[in-house]
Amino acid sequence: MKNIKLTIQYDGFGYFGWQIQPDRPTIQYEIKKAIESLTGQDITVNGSSRTDAGVSALGQVANIKIDTPVPTENFAKALTARLPGQISITEAIETDENFDAISDTKTKLYRYTIYTGTNRPVMTIRHCWHRPGKLDIEKMDMAAKILVGKHDFKSFASAADQRQSSVRTILQCSVKADSDYIYIETEADGFLYNMVRNIVGTLVEVGRDRWQPEFIEEILEKKDRATAGPIASASGLCLMWIKY
Amino acid sequence: MKNIKLTIQYDGFGYFGWQIQPDRPTIQYEIKKAIESLTGQDITVNGSSRTDAGVSALGQVANIKIDTPVPTENFAKALTARLPGQISITEAIETDENFDAISDTKTKLYRYTIYTGTNRPVMTIRHCWHRPGKLDIEKMDMAAKILVGKHDFKSFASAADQRQSSVRTILQCSVKADSDYIYIETEADGFLYNMVRNIVGTLVEVGRDRWQPEFIEEILEKKDRATAGPIASASGLCLMWIKY
Repeated sequence: MKNIKLTIQYDGFGYFGWQIQPDRPTIQYEIKKAIESLTGQDITVNGSSRTDAGVSALGQVANIKIDTPVPTENFAKALTARLPGQISITEAIETDENFDAISDTKTKLYRYTIYTGTNRPVMTIRHCWHRPGKLDIEKMDMAAKILVGKHDFKSFASAADQRQSSVRTILQCSVKADSDYIYIETEADGFLYNMVRNIVGTLVEVGRDRWQPEFIEEILEKKDRATAGPIASASGLCLMWIKY
Repeated sequence: MKNIKLTIQYDGFGYFGWQIQPDRPTIQYEIKKAIESLTGQDITVNGSSRTDAGVSALGQVANIKIDTPVPTENFAKALTARLPGQISITEAIETDENFDAISDTKTKLYRYTIYTGTNRPVMTIRHCWHRPGKLDIEKMDMAAKILVGKHDFKSFASAADQRQSSVRTILQCSVKADSDYIYIETEADGFLYNMVRNIVGTLVEVGRDRWQPEFIEEILEKKDRATAGPIASASGLCLMWIKY
């Protein structure tokens, strides 16, 4: 039995997220189907992040336990050839038998893209949040820095989050602009449900001068979702990489 | 009766091209529907280019003849708000009563994008032709320069082309690379059916050293579609602008 680690890229537009659901196209289902087509085996694809509908990934990781004569070095190319154009396996390597893509995760980095130009960006609108109007990048970045460290992020977790502890450590959180695009990058040892999108929505409230950066401290202290900003659209979110 | 010139952008992925067809989503249909929703009027949207399925545009132009109290300066924003995210009206201006978006066209420029990297570009695959492997940009650009001028482009017209004359003037044709992306830009006073995609397919044969640049002269002389290269995928094509 081999334990194979897969690195996966996908454009999440048009998919109902990572996890298999009845009668709906999902990334996990497409990959499971491709593996079955290649090896004849119906196995579980253990993905590190259950990305939501519309969320993309350039560095999702999954592991599969499989007994097959297909050489592991052929997996990435052969699976990609069996996948739709929006999904690709960029690497497949045989790993330690105990490796688990979920529980062995050390940190992950998500990038969020906002487009602030007036005209609708028709070619990139599936991969950003179109929010016309200037934002104060400097203030947003100051607010982002307050989030760095070990905190209880309960205020940034959607009610649907079922995890026992809402304490996480953010290793970096930065806001950068490139003409009309804004990129918000967040690396953490784990994320609560909708945490990045709730952080982005909150930073935008700072960027449009509704709140001062220091208000982030108050939001963290309150441990109440209602004190933070509105959730940002799923389309701007992309899982960039996972460290093990 | 006003004659309004519209400048239109769209991501062609998922649409069956510009022109209205029964029971299929098209750009022209979406715009016609948006105009009806805004003004209550069912009018013809006279688009300059009948782009094919999967082809995008950043500068399509159309004109509409309409009698409406809605101020022309509100058209672009109001129509865009009524259109799907992949379509946008960037400008609407009142023009001369005789202006016709098709017959008044002087020149147009199309850009074609090829991605030559090995890994599938999941985020941009809807807007390029993924053709892994190095291409000789210098030779492709030399071949492109041979196409510039007034020629009979019959060898580059698909059989479906019904136009009487296949003589056109190419004002510029260039091949440029930016890391693994190649951009081929062609400006002409008119294009035959599939002309840009047939030119691109031919330039790629030069780029992969099957043909020398000078072979373009022979292809032009033969006036036979079979002598040119295979057609390139629609997904890489984008109408950039139209001059009047």
